[in-house]
Amino acid sequence: MSYSHPFLPQRSPLAAWARGLKHSALQQLLLAGSRPDILSLAMGLPAAELFPAAAYSEAVAKVLASDPRALQYGPPFQPLKKHVVKLMEQRGVWCREEQVFLTAGAQQGTNLLARLLLEQGSQVIVEEKLYPGFHQVLQPYQPEILTVPTDPATGIDVDAVEKLLRDGAEPKLIYVIADGHNPLAVSMSRDKRRRLVKVARRYCVPIIEDDPYGFLSYEENAEPLLAFENEWVFYVGTFSKILAPALRTGWLIVPQPLLSLLATVKEASDINIAPLNQRAISTYMDMGLFDEHLAVLRREYRTRRDAMLDTLEFMMPDDAHWQKPDCGLFIWVDLPSGVDSGALLAQAIEEEQLVFVPGHSFSIADRPCPKNSVRLNFSSNSVDRITEGITRFARVLERHRFGPRFSTLPFAERADISHIFPVESHA
Amino acid sequence: MSYSHPFLPQRSPLAAWARGLKHSALQQLLLAGSRPDILSLAMGLPAAELFPAAAYSEAVAKVLASDPRALQYGPPFQPLKKHVVKLMEQRGVWCREEQVFLTAGAQQGTNLLARLLLEQGSQVIVEEKLYPGFHQVLQPYQPEILTVPTDPATGIDVDAVEKLLRDGAEPKLIYVIADGHNPLAVSMSRDKRRRLVKVARRYCVPIIEDDPYGFLSYEENAEPLLAFENEWVFYVGTFSKILAPALRTGWLIVPQPLLSLLATVKEASDINIAPLNQRAISTYMDMGLFDEHLAVLRREYRTRRDAMLDTLEFMMPDDAHWQKPDCGLFIWVDLPSGVDSGALLAQAIEEEQLVFVPGHSFSIADRPCPKNSVRLNFSSNSVDRITEGITRFARVLERHRFGPRFSTLPFAERADISHIFPVESHA
Repeated sequence: MSYSHPFLPQRSPLAAWARGLKHSALQQLLLAGSRPDILSLAMGLPAAELFPAAAYSEAVAKVLASDPRALQYGPPFQPLKKHVVKLMEQRGVWCREEQVFLTAGAQQGTNLLARLLLEQGSQVIVEEKLYPGFHQVLQPYQPEILTVPTDPATGIDVDAVEKLLRDGAEPKLIYVIADGHNPLAVSMSRDKRRRLVKVARRYCVPIIEDDPYGFLSYEENAEPLLAFENEWVFYVGTFSKILAPALRTGWLIVPQPLLSLLATVKEASDINIAPLNQRAISTYMDMGLFDEHLAVLRREYRTRRDAMLDTLEFMMPDDAHWQKPDCGLFIWVDLPSGVDSGALLAQAIEEEQLVFVPGHSFSIADRPCPKNSVRLNFSSNSVDRITEGITRFARVLERHRFGPRFSTLPFAERADISHIFPVESHA
Repeated sequence: MSYSHPFLPQRSPLAAWARGLKHSALQQLLLAGSRPDILSLAMGLPAAELFPAAAYSEAVAKVLASDPRALQYGPPFQPLKKHVVKLMEQRGVWCREEQVFLTAGAQQGTNLLARLLLEQGSQVIVEEKLYPGFHQVLQPYQPEILTVPTDPATGIDVDAVEKLLRDGAEPKLIYVIADGHNPLAVSMSRDKRRRLVKVARRYCVPIIEDDPYGFLSYEENAEPLLAFENEWVFYVGTFSKILAPALRTGWLIVPQPLLSLLATVKEASDINIAPLNQRAISTYMDMGLFDEHLAVLRREYRTRRDAMLDTLEFMMPDDAHWQKPDCGLFIWVDLPSGVDSGALLAQAIEEEQLVFVPGHSFSIADRPCPKNSVRLNFSSNSVDRITEGITRFARVLERHRFGPRFSTLPFAERADISHIFPVESHA
C-alpha cells in the first residue's frame, strides 16, 4: 500500500494551533536519555533499581486471581481512596474519601482541573520558572500568563501575588509546587504557605498545588498548602515518584462538589474507569510494605543528594551557586554569568556524553531569562555515577569557559573513569 | 478540619461551561448495573468470565521480573506496535509501525484526534444516532453538528454526506463506526465503504473510524474503511473489547506525520509514557495465545447473539423490529410506535430489576427522535441470563402497553425463573 502524506499546507485538515506544534523538549530528552552511551542528569526519573517490582507483581497476581472485576469496566476503586486519605495524614492533611479523585497521574490531574477552571484567555498566576508540563496544560486556553518571582530559599513571592490581585488581576488559578519545586528545588517556608493561602481565600482564587515530590523529603518539612486551606487549594498527588511512573496513577484532593464534575470531564477524556493498576496499588498497600519503601527512597535519595552537593562543592568554580534542597529530585545551579547553558549542553553531549536541562527550558516564551542556570537530577543515578556526572560537568564547564586547554580542575585524572563505571541508560 | 464548599454561584471559580456539567448517563448506568439485584442488558461490557486473567498475570510477572524499565518513564513500547500491525493484517489492513500511535483506549484516541482537528465552532458530520462518548469529545469545541441518517441494513447514508459537502459544508471530520455500530449494531456495506472514503478524499475531510467492535465479527465482514483509504481515514482501535477494558490500552493508525503531533498532545494530557500495560500486553501477545482468545470470544458472543435473537423472535410482538448484527455487542430494537422506552426503563427497573438503554440516549440534543427504540447488549450475560432478560423485557413491555393484567405471553410461567438463575452483577 503506497503512502504519501496528505498534509500539504494548502489543504491541511489540522486545527490552526496544531499546525505549529513541535516535538517537545521532554520527548527529545527522553529519547537522548535512553541512548546507552549517555550519562543523564536531565530527567526527573525515580531510581529504577528501587522500584518494588516483585511486591507489585505479587499484588497484580493476587488481584487477578481473586477479583473477577479486575479487568472489567467499573467505577474508580474506592479502597485506594482510603489509602490516599491515610497517606495524606502522614503529611498533616486530614481529608475525606469523598474528596479524593483518582487520576492517571499528576499531569492528567492538573489537566482536568484546568479544564474545569479555565476559559479561553483566562488569566493565570505562575512562577517565572515553570514546569513545562503545566505550560503545556495551559496552552490550549491561550491564557494571559501573569508571572511572579521565586526566592531561592523561601519560594514563590507571595507579596508579588498579592500585588497582582490588589491591582485588579482576576486569575482563574495560581499554580504552585510548594515542596521540592521543579525546577528550582526550593520548598516554600511555612510562613509563606500561611500567607499564600490567605491571599487565595481573600481573593477567591483556587491554588493548584502540584505535589509530585512532597513525600520525598529529607529534612523537617512544612505541611502542604492543603493542610492550611482545604477549600481554595486543589491538591495534585501522584504515585509516579513514590511508587512507579509506569503505573500511571495519581489523585486529586478537592472540595467534594468538584468530584462529579471531574468524573464527567475525565470520562470524556478516557472513560474514567478503574484501571487494573488502581486495584493492584491498593493491594500492594494492603500488604503493608509502602511505608518502608518510602523510608528507603528518602534515605537513598538523601544520600544521592548529599553526594551531588559534596561533589559540586568540590568541583564547581566559586562563582557558581546553589541551595541545598530539602525535598524532591533536583538541584538548581546558577553558573558564572556569561555561561550559555544551552551551548554548554551541546558541548557536554559531544565531549562528555552528559545531559542535563538548561535552566531556560523552564522559562515562559517571550519572557527571556538569564541563560546561565541548569537543573541537575540526583535521584536516578548511583552515588558513583553522580560523582562521575558532576566531574564531567565541571570538566566541560571549564573547557566551555576557558577553551580546550587541559584542565586544572581537581579530579581531572578522572577522565578515564568511564571505563570503570560503564555508562548505562537511565531514561 | 471543618469543610464547607465554596462554590456559591456568585463566586464560582469554575469555567462557565463547567457550571452546567451533569453526572453522565453512562456513570449512572455503571452504578445501577453494579447493583447486585439488577439484570443488565445496558452496558457494552465484554464477558468478564472470558478475560484471560491467568495468562495476563503471567505476562505481568514475566515483564516485572525481566525488564528493569517496566515501571519507569519511557517512550511508547515499540514491540506492541509490531503486534498491532500484525493484528490489523487480519482485517486486511496493511500499515507500518510508524503509523501506530498507542493510547489509553479508544476514548483517548478520539479525543486526541479531535484536539488536532477541531477549532471552536468547527463543523463536523456524525450520524443521527451517536455514541455519547464521542458527543462528550465534541462538546468543548461547541461544534456545528451536521447529521446524516443511517440505514439499518447498510449503515451511514453516504448520499447525505456527499450532499452536505456538495452544498458547501466544510466539516473538519466525519465520525463513523463502520463495524457493529454503537448503538445501531449495523455494519456498513462494502459498497458504501468504497463510496464514503472516495467522498472524504475528494472533499479532503478526515474520517475518524472508531472501531472498538470490528474484531468481534460473527459473519464474513468487509475490511475497515482504513483498508480502502489510508490518508483520509484515521483509525481508532482498542484492546478494551478484545482483551480487557481495565488495561486502558488502544491505538490509532494515522498518516505518519501526525504521530509527533499526537505525541505532543498526549504528553500534555498524561505525559505519554509507556505504561506497564503496554509491555504486559505485548508479552501476552508474544505468548501466542491471542488468536485463540479472539476465536473464543467470537464463538461465544455469536452464541449469545443468536440466543438473544431467538428469544426476541419468540417473545416480541409482531410490530417490533430488529436486524441481525454481524458484528459487535448490541441489538437495536424498534418497539411498537407509541412506546416510550424511557418510561419503560423506569418500569423495568421497578418491576423486573432489568436495565437497558433507551434509544433516545443516543440522539443529539435539540434533534428529537422517536422514543420507541432500545439498545440491548448480548455480550455480558450467559445464554440463560439473556433468555431470562428478554423474557423480563417482554413481560414489562406487555404490561407497559396494556396495563398490569396478567400476561398472555408465551413463557409467562418464567416469572419465577429468577430463583433458578440468581441475579448477579455484570457491570
